[in-house]
Amino acid sequence: MITFVLASASPSRLRILEQAGVDPLVRPSRVDEDALQAGLPENTPHVRVVEELARAKATDVLEREGATLASEARAAGADTLVVVGCDSMLLVDGQLEGKPHTYDRAMERWRRLRGRHGVLLTGHAMLVADLGDARAAGGDDDDVVVVRYSGADTSTTTVHFGAPSDADLDVYLRTGEPLECAGAFTIESLGGWFIDRIEGDPSSVIGLSLPLLRRLLEDAGLHAHSLWRPELRS
Amino acid sequence: MITFVLASASPSRLRILEQAGVDPLVRPSRVDEDALQAGLPENTPHVRVVEELARAKATDVLEREGATLASEARAAGADTLVVVGCDSMLLVDGQLEGKPHTYDRAMERWRRLRGRHGVLLTGHAMLVADLGDARAAGGDDDDVVVVRYSGADTSTTTVHFGAPSDADLDVYLRTGEPLECAGAFTIESLGGWFIDRIEGDPSSVIGLSLPLLRRLLEDAGLHAHSLWRPELRS
Repeated sequence: MITFVLASASPSRLRILEQAGVDPLVRPSRVDEDALQAGLPENTPHVRVVEELARAKATDVLEREGATLASEARAAGADTLVVVGCDSMLLVDGQLEGKPHTYDRAMERWRRLRGRHGVLLTGHAMLVADLGDARAAGGDDDDVVVVRYSGADTSTTTVHFGAPSDADLDVYLRTGEPLECAGAFTIESLGGWFIDRIEGDPSSVIGLSLPLLRRLLEDAGLHAHSLWRPELRS
Repeated sequence: MITFVLASASPSRLRILEQAGVDPLVRPSRVDEDALQAGLPENTPHVRVVEELARAKATDVLEREGATLASEARAAGADTLVVVGCDSMLLVDGQLEGKPHTYDRAMERWRRLRGRHGVLLTGHAMLVADLGDARAAGGDDDDVVVVRYSGADTSTTTVHFGAPSDADLDVYLRTGEPLECAGAFTIESLGGWFIDRIEGDPSSVIGLSLPLLRRLLEDAGLHAHSLWRPELRS
């Protein structure tokens, strides 16, 4: 049995997992994203920036909370601990854009974006620890968490923005929904009205790519369905 | 104020509207889809088939329940009644595929589909009635529902299927989730693990295209945000 940990505070990521049959433990990272991004070499490719941030988040959670998570997981009968971190940014005009935070900045971005397209990059990092191995390796030392698999990849999706009126935008942005979202938009909720089409994986645009996660799981020798809640597998 | 009626029993369509800020009245149609499709001329283009089915559903609901809906809407203070019908089918190898209904048929389709792509067609029809006009035209006869706008369009999205193992497929199909879905797949829930990418509008794949609905609304002189629940517009 697997204990699955989402190293993110994003309600969108949690919801996509829940809708896809997974009830993760939510353990947000404490990574300073701006500082980490600023510390990367200047020519770091965009797909690597989001991957590095995702990796930093998963690693942070495993380092800080791994021992607690492992003993919780063992108590629940799990033999495997999986920690996933993600990071999303919108690439527009060669620039990576994160969260707008304010109405004014979001409006400014939407006026620039509407009728155009951007590329949503979502980096994923997955760490897998075998809890059985740790017990074998450490005797009765439950604190040992041995990472047996570490994978990362980035999902790249082109997003074609519609051309909402200023009136629609004003109502949308005043709800506050997109202010804490990469690129100042959502696609699964109110923002869905204003995205005309995408080329890529829809779940990656919400913040976590299910098919990419499936490939990382398979790479680690695990089935996607082994994360699903028990009543879906009976 | 608008009273918005969804002429569909689909929980996916209801959920996408609710997530997009709309609480519709749900009034499923009683159209015999198979009989209606069989009655269309043989050379009817695929995009027209789903459009005709969508139109039949919206029309059926307005004809059977229009008077009741109009008086409910007026009582709630609405001056406009909007009825929307939808129909989705998957086009594979030149054939339109509806719901598989059984595990065996779904498994047969998935074994054929995995690693390939299909085209998801979602037809939409929208009827708009001005309740104020009806009252003016009919005096105190509240039963009169005058349709002032009738629009229809089809959303076309290419869906690239992943290649889930037989074990993953078995667990997925045994949940029953995709058995009553066009093309034997879902994208917003468990099926999201097994769809690698799309080219088109994600909401159309769930069953109702929000940007297409926005364009029909604008065509009828209405704003998308005027459907949103009041607390989102304050």
